[in-house]
Amino acid sequence: MGINLSNFLSSKEKNRKLNQFQDLDHVDGLSISTVSANLYNNDRDDLVMFYFREGANYASVYTQSKILSENIKWNLNQKPNKVYSLIVNTRNANSFTGEQGYKSMENIAEIVSKKLNDKQKEDEDQPEKIKSKNIIFGCTGTIGEKFPEEKIRDKITDLINNIKYTQNKYIWMKAALGIMTTDTQPKMAMEECMIGSSSIKIYGIAKGSGMIQPNMGTTLSYIFTDADISNDVLKKLLKKNIENTFNAISCDGDTSTNDMISIFATGKARHSKINNISDTKIKDFDEALNKVLLNLAKRVVADGEGASKFITINVKNSKTEQESKKIGFSIANSSLVKTAIAGEDPNWGRVIMAIGKSGATINLEKLSVKFGDLQVVYKGKIYNNYNEDETASYMKNSNIEITVDVASGTKNFTVYTMDLTQKYIQINADYRS
Amino acid sequence: MGINLSNFLSSKEKNRKLNQFQDLDHVDGLSISTVSANLYNNDRDDLVMFYFREGANYASVYTQSKILSENIKWNLNQKPNKVYSLIVNTRNANSFTGEQGYKSMENIAEIVSKKLNDKQKEDEDQPEKIKSKNIIFGCTGTIGEKFPEEKIRDKITDLINNIKYTQNKYIWMKAALGIMTTDTQPKMAMEECMIGSSSIKIYGIAKGSGMIQPNMGTTLSYIFTDADISNDVLKKLLKKNIENTFNAISCDGDTSTNDMISIFATGKARHSKINNISDTKIKDFDEALNKVLLNLAKRVVADGEGASKFITINVKNSKTEQESKKIGFSIANSSLVKTAIAGEDPNWGRVIMAIGKSGATINLEKLSVKFGDLQVVYKGKIYNNYNEDETASYMKNSNIEITVDVASGTKNFTVYTMDLTQKYIQINADYRS
Repeated sequence: MGINLSNFLSSKEKNRKLNQFQDLDHVDGLSISTVSANLYNNDRDDLVMFYFREGANYASVYTQSKILSENIKWNLNQKPNKVYSLIVNTRNANSFTGEQGYKSMENIAEIVSKKLNDKQKEDEDQPEKIKSKNIIFGCTGTIGEKFPEEKIRDKITDLINNIKYTQNKYIWMKAALGIMTTDTQPKMAMEECMIGSSSIKIYGIAKGSGMIQPNMGTTLSYIFTDADISNDVLKKLLKKNIENTFNAISCDGDTSTNDMISIFATGKARHSKINNISDTKIKDFDEALNKVLLNLAKRVVADGEGASKFITINVKNSKTEQESKKIGFSIANSSLVKTAIAGEDPNWGRVIMAIGKSGATINLEKLSVKFGDLQVVYKGKIYNNYNEDETASYMKNSNIEITVDVASGTKNFTVYTMDLTQKYIQINADYRS
Repeated sequence: MGINLSNFLSSKEKNRKLNQFQDLDHVDGLSISTVSANLYNNDRDDLVMFYFREGANYASVYTQSKILSENIKWNLNQKPNKVYSLIVNTRNANSFTGEQGYKSMENIAEIVSKKLNDKQKEDEDQPEKIKSKNIIFGCTGTIGEKFPEEKIRDKITDLINNIKYTQNKYIWMKAALGIMTTDTQPKMAMEECMIGSSSIKIYGIAKGSGMIQPNMGTTLSYIFTDADISNDVLKKLLKKNIENTFNAISCDGDTSTNDMISIFATGKARHSKINNISDTKIKDFDEALNKVLLNLAKRVVADGEGASKFITINVKNSKTEQESKKIGFSIANSSLVKTAIAGEDPNWGRVIMAIGKSGATINLEKLSVKFGDLQVVYKGKIYNNYNEDETASYMKNSNIEITVDVASGTKNFTVYTMDLTQKYIQINADYRS
C-alpha cells in the first residue's frame, strides 16, 4: 500500500523526524520479549510479552461488540491493582472458542505467573507476589479455531529467558512486528512530556485491521509510560483521549470482537503520584497521550486495507460534538464517497448525500463544504467560483481533506479514514483464490 | 451484470412466468406517455407522464434524508385530495438547486394543469378542475446542476398529445425504461387480487441506484391500481408494506435525497370504497401490494451496481422485529461480509462480527447461523459437522441465503442485499476516466 506517512503528520512531527519510524527506547520498569510460537507455521515472531517487574498501574478499553473474544472476557474478569504482564499473540483471535479458549487463558496465566515468580526469586530474591489475575492478554487473528494453548505454553520459558532489563529501538520494532497480522507496516509512536519537574515518556505500538481467513480486522494498541498515575486516573485519561483518536477512525465501518487499547504506567518516574484527574500537573501528559494515540490511530488508517488515500473529514460548528461526529462518520463510512475519492473524483454530491443521511439536523441554507482549501458548497449552494478542474486536480493528492461547516453551533469533530479501492475488494474477496 | 431473476423469485412466481418481464396492460383511469426531452443529449425517453383523467387517490413516502430535493419539497407542500398527474424526469435530480429548482416545479405544474384542462375540455367537455397542486414530480439524476425547466416545458405539449386511453405492455416498458438512470434493466411487477367480488389490478414500476456524475443512486417506485381506496388507507397500506420490502433492501447503505415511493388508486374498479384500514375486504389487496413491492425491491437489489450475487439475510427469533432488523442490516451493510460473498468465501467469522457490532442484545450460547441449508454455527459454537468444502461449494450459487437464529424471542426480519465487487468500485470510482 504505502501511503507516505509524511502526508498526514504535522510539520512539527515531521521536523522531529517522526515521519517514518519513531525510535523508542527504554521505559523504566518495562521489559519486552518476543518469540515465534510457530502459530503461522513459519519463523516470524508471533508471541510478545510485556513484563512489568514491579507491576504497572493500567487501564483498558475494549471492543463495543456484543460478542467478546475469550481473552477480553478473561481481562474483564480480573480486577488486579497492578498488571505484571501483557501477553499478545497473533494468528488466533481466541474468539468463538468457548470454554476451551477461556480455560487456555487461565492455564497460561497460571504458568506465566508461576515462572515470573521464579524469575523474581532468582533475580532479586523477591517473595511470590504475582498471581494469575495479574496477567492479561491481547489476541488477534482467525476466529472460531481452537486456541493453540500448547504451542504458546511451550514458549513461555523462552519468552521469560529472553527478558532484558534495558530496552532499545530494536526490541520495540520486534514487538510492533510481533503483534501484526496482515498489516503492511509496524506502528509505533512516542512523546515526551513533563509532570512537575520530571520528564516522562509515553510510548505506544498498535496494529491495524488485517485479514486472515476466516476472521476480521482487529485494532490493538498498547501505551507504556514511566509516569506514576493511579488506575482510576489512567482510565479517565484513556477514555477521554480515545474519543478523538481511535474512536475517530474508520477503515470499513466494521468492529472486531477483539479490539483492545490499554495504557500501562510503571510509576518509575520521580514525581508525586497523580491520584486525581483534576490535578493540573497532568495537563502536559494528557496532551502528549492524545498525540501518541492520534499518531497511532492515523497509522492504522493509512495502512488500512487497499488504502491509496488518507482522508481527513473535519465537521465544524454543529450544536453538539455528537452531531459533528455523526456527520463525519456518515461521510467516512459511505462507500460512494470512498470510491469517488479512490477515483480522484471531486464528487461533492455524494458528500451532500452522506450529510443528509447522517440523521443530524441540518440547516441547508447555512451548509458549506470545502475540499482542501477549495470552496465547493457555500451556504447551501454551489460556490459561485467553484472550479471543477481545480478541484479535480486537488483530488490527485494522497492526503484529502474535506471540511463541512454546519454553521449552527460551535462543536467540531474530525474523522480519519481511507478510500475504498479495487485492492480492498481483492484483499477481502479473493484472499484464498 | 445480470443476476438471473429466476434465482430469487419464488417457484410460484416462476410458474406464473413472471421471472423475466411481467406483462402489464391497462389500468382503468390511467394513461401513460413518454418523450425525449433530450436531457441526456441523445434520443432516449427521459420524461414520463402518468395521467389520471379523473384524478387518483394517492399516498407517498419520501427519503429519510435531511436534505430533500426540490421536487420532494414541492410534493410535500401540495395537499390535494387527488393527483391528476405524476411527471418523472431522469438525468437531473433537482437537488441542491435552490429557488430555481423549486420555481421550476411550480412553473411546470402550472403549464401541465392548464394544458390538461384544455385537453379535458376538448375531449369530454369537462370544466376546469385541475390545479397546479394536483401535479406531483419524481426526479432522479445529477444533483447541483441547474434544473432543465425549458427543455421539459418544451415537451409538455408532446407528452399530452401522446396520451392514449388504453395502455399496453409496450407503454409500461417505455415508462419503466424512461425513469432509469444507469439501471441495466427496467423493473416492473404486477399482481391481481380481489376486493369483495371485484378483480383488482396492482401494477408497479421502479428504478434502482444508478450513478451519473456527480450524484447518488435513487430509488423511485410507483404503484398504480384501479381499486377505490381513500388517501388515508393508501398511506397506511404503503407505510406498512414498505417496511419489509423497500425498507428491507440495501445496496451500499447510502440514502438519496430523492427517494420516493407512491401509490395511486384510480377508483375505477366496481366495489364500495375502502375508507377504513381495518375493513376486512382489504386483506387480499394488502397481501398483493406487498408482493408487488417486494418483487420490485428485489429487482432493485439484483440490479445493484456491480452485483454478482443476490443475498437474502433472514434473522429469526429476536425479542423484537427491530432487533432482527438491526442484525440483518449490520450484516447486509458490512463491506467485509459483502466482499467475502463476492469472493465465494464462506467467511462466517465476518457474519459473527457483524452480528456483534449490530448493537442488538445477543445470547451467544443460543446463536445459530446457516448458509443456505448448511449449519455453520450451532448454539454459539462451530457446528460439529461443519463442512468447509461443502459450504465453499454452496457459495458458488448466485443466490446466497444467510439465516441467523437468535433464539431469544419470536420476531423475524429479512434483509435483501447484493455483494460488493470490483465492478462496484470500477463503476463508482472510475466513472469519468
